[in-house]
Amino acid sequence: MLGIPYTSVEIDILKGESRTKEFLKINPNGRIPVLEINGQCLPESNAALWYLAKNTRYLPSDHYAEAQVLQWMFFEQYSHEPYIATSRYWISILKAEEKYKQQLEQKRAGGHAALNVMEGHLASNNYFVANKFSIADIALYANTCVADEGNFDLSGFPNINIWFKRIEAQPGYISIRQRCAL
Amino acid sequence: MLGIPYTSVEIDILKGESRTKEFLKINPNGRIPVLEINGQCLPESNAALWYLAKNTRYLPSDHYAEAQVLQWMFFEQYSHEPYIATSRYWISILKAEEKYKQQLEQKRAGGHAALNVMEGHLASNNYFVANKFSIADIALYANTCVADEGNFDLSGFPNINIWFKRIEAQPGYISIRQRCAL
Repeated sequence: MLGIPYTSVEIDILKGESRTKEFLKINPNGRIPVLEINGQCLPESNAALWYLAKNTRYLPSDHYAEAQVLQWMFFEQYSHEPYIATSRYWISILKAEEKYKQQLEQKRAGGHAALNVMEGHLASNNYFVANKFSIADIALYANTCVADEGNFDLSGFPNINIWFKRIEAQPGYISIRQRCAL
Repeated sequence: MLGIPYTSVEIDILKGESRTKEFLKINPNGRIPVLEINGQCLPESNAALWYLAKNTRYLPSDHYAEAQVLQWMFFEQYSHEPYIATSRYWISILKAEEKYKQQLEQKRAGGHAALNVMEGHLASNNYFVANKFSIADIALYANTCVADEGNFDLSGFPNINIWFKRIEAQPGYISIRQRCAL
């Protein structure tokens, strides 16, 4: 969306590629993604989003609005991703729904709680912060738009579905499914 | 540490006070803490830290260093808090170690992994970012310094213990145990 040229390096976590000695030099926490920029490494997807968006139209410069963007990104990491993305990982990436049946059951309530918080917020807001598209929307969109692959049915969340359309209409938008299929 | 006057309002989560209709207007996600400032509410502890620290000596103004502060705060919320703080909550707040025996077992590896990442980083750094005390240290200190109350033995982590001393020597430092006992 910013038109910055980049190279994408695939790391296969299923083959342990994020836990090799070489990779742990890049991120000692052994997780992807990592943004490498000017020879410096920056782990944590939302820190990378903030780094790239700073001083662009995707991050409000107002002090309180910027804090609200961070608020929603911390919400995403603590209250959303561990339920919705983890369920999708077990079901659609590992294809091990049967094996993780009990753990998946434990993830249902938390996932629905996160979706309900989003649905309620979007009842009176077009976007998450300051009524403008920002990295708060990008951070929350990524795992929400594929929540069905974690068996979260979004048909009962009309505000989230309308918000999806607003995001998909942004200049430079690339479908995550299209991206994954590349 | 900033000398800003504030009023602390206790919310008893064990009595459901963070899930009342009134509280959900303050934070629809039903969690504490929430910073209320100029009549505006800001949930998420690390968003509140960022809001307060911006333009102070506790947050570097360099673009990459500030991103690194956020990186460690996202690490704290995703890879540290869910293991170490949750274990402490079950054992020392709920006093229900027996009841949560199995879940506590599942939290051990993740908690130790987070402590090892911190220990490794502190082997060659006095603080988490830019060799200066910042809100990255504050965010990580809070739950690490009481990790023993979650049955994480820190005696094998000498660098973390030395870092504790550096933080406890900061002007305005108040012990968290002292604070909890107030």
